[in-house]
Amino acid sequence: MIPKKIPAPVSKRLALYHRCVNTLLNSGKDTTSSKELGERLSLKATQIRKDLSYFGDFGKRGMGYDLNYLKESLERVLGINKHWNIGIVGAGNIGMALSNYQGLTREGYKVVALFDRNPSKVGNFVGTQKIPIYSLDDICEKIRELSIEIGVIAVPANHAQAVADKLVECEIKGIVNFAPVKLYLDSVALEDVDISTSFKALTFRIQGGSCGGT
Amino acid sequence: MIPKKIPAPVSKRLALYHRCVNTLLNSGKDTTSSKELGERLSLKATQIRKDLSYFGDFGKRGMGYDLNYLKESLERVLGINKHWNIGIVGAGNIGMALSNYQGLTREGYKVVALFDRNPSKVGNFVGTQKIPIYSLDDICEKIRELSIEIGVIAVPANHAQAVADKLVECEIKGIVNFAPVKLYLDSVALEDVDISTSFKALTFRIQGGSCGGT
Repeated sequence: MIPKKIPAPVSKRLALYHRCVNTLLNSGKDTTSSKELGERLSLKATQIRKDLSYFGDFGKRGMGYDLNYLKESLERVLGINKHWNIGIVGAGNIGMALSNYQGLTREGYKVVALFDRNPSKVGNFVGTQKIPIYSLDDICEKIRELSIEIGVIAVPANHAQAVADKLVECEIKGIVNFAPVKLYLDSVALEDVDISTSFKALTFRIQGGSCGGT
Repeated sequence: MIPKKIPAPVSKRLALYHRCVNTLLNSGKDTTSSKELGERLSLKATQIRKDLSYFGDFGKRGMGYDLNYLKESLERVLGINKHWNIGIVGAGNIGMALSNYQGLTREGYKVVALFDRNPSKVGNFVGTQKIPIYSLDDICEKIRELSIEIGVIAVPANHAQAVADKLVECEIKGIVNFAPVKLYLDSVALEDVDISTSFKALTFRIQGGSCGGT
């Protein structure tokens, strides 16, 4: 039961709230407030209350938010109360790094396959989970067979659009793009991961441009 | 001449504006408007005008923004009109991927060294730029010698805090943390890169929770 018409920036903030809620739970807390979340995330408490109100009445006035209930609700809304099968296109450094990234597994994202066009890589297995590398030629078949819902683009920039088109052809549900290039896609949810954004935010702050926390 | 007291969320949006401005310039445009930027980034035009107004009078009413001037100004504010030297701790998959990531180089971020505690990796060179891998024991010396300003943490979660403490001891200016763990630091600018945030935003949208573009 997810409400419609929630702007994209809100969804980004919900993922931040989820991360912060986990940190608070791990530190042994049971409840939090929009003020506390706001201080930790450098957001206004009013913004946080407004964002969370999209999903019903989470908090009781003056009582704060129950962290476990908030976590559950955010996970339902963010779609991480279920498991998602991921296929990574490109068994290079980024693909390998993602295959072994604990931060994905523990959130319910499971890398079940890698795809590469290099015959010397196809047939190998990656990491402790022994994830198989398949040929890019077999991608649509494997996406169906393994119920892969999310495709990750981890190929060089000049190949990224062709891979994206292929994933759309295979009827993937969503794409996460690590290639530093703008992709043109219809009808499929797309998230660009631009690593340089974090570096820019950092250097901005080193130069004295921020008053906020981390 | 960077104004003080700009909230952290604004700095994140400035990096988004910079990316979008580059895309528009590459598509052959000369000017843009807060409306156009807003549509592309799923933000309100008023928000964009407010953010940009922190840095003086960019746009003329009714005339829009000159893209080249906007790009220059954003680069000055974000600290990417200069080069930044980067040292990566951890010559594993993430470290290797970052060493070869075009999206950093072209924004003025230069990886000049990797550090690892594995003796079999020390002394090797990485990627087309032949970036040297040094011993973690020599990190403070190399940070001084090579004028490294930004340290990247690309080690497993359980080693991340120790590496962060070491970087602070070496008087690094800022840290970008790729380990999926919360770090506790005083006095040094820190940016966490949580890859799972992008996946959460994507699955939220796959489930029908967004109305925005990419």
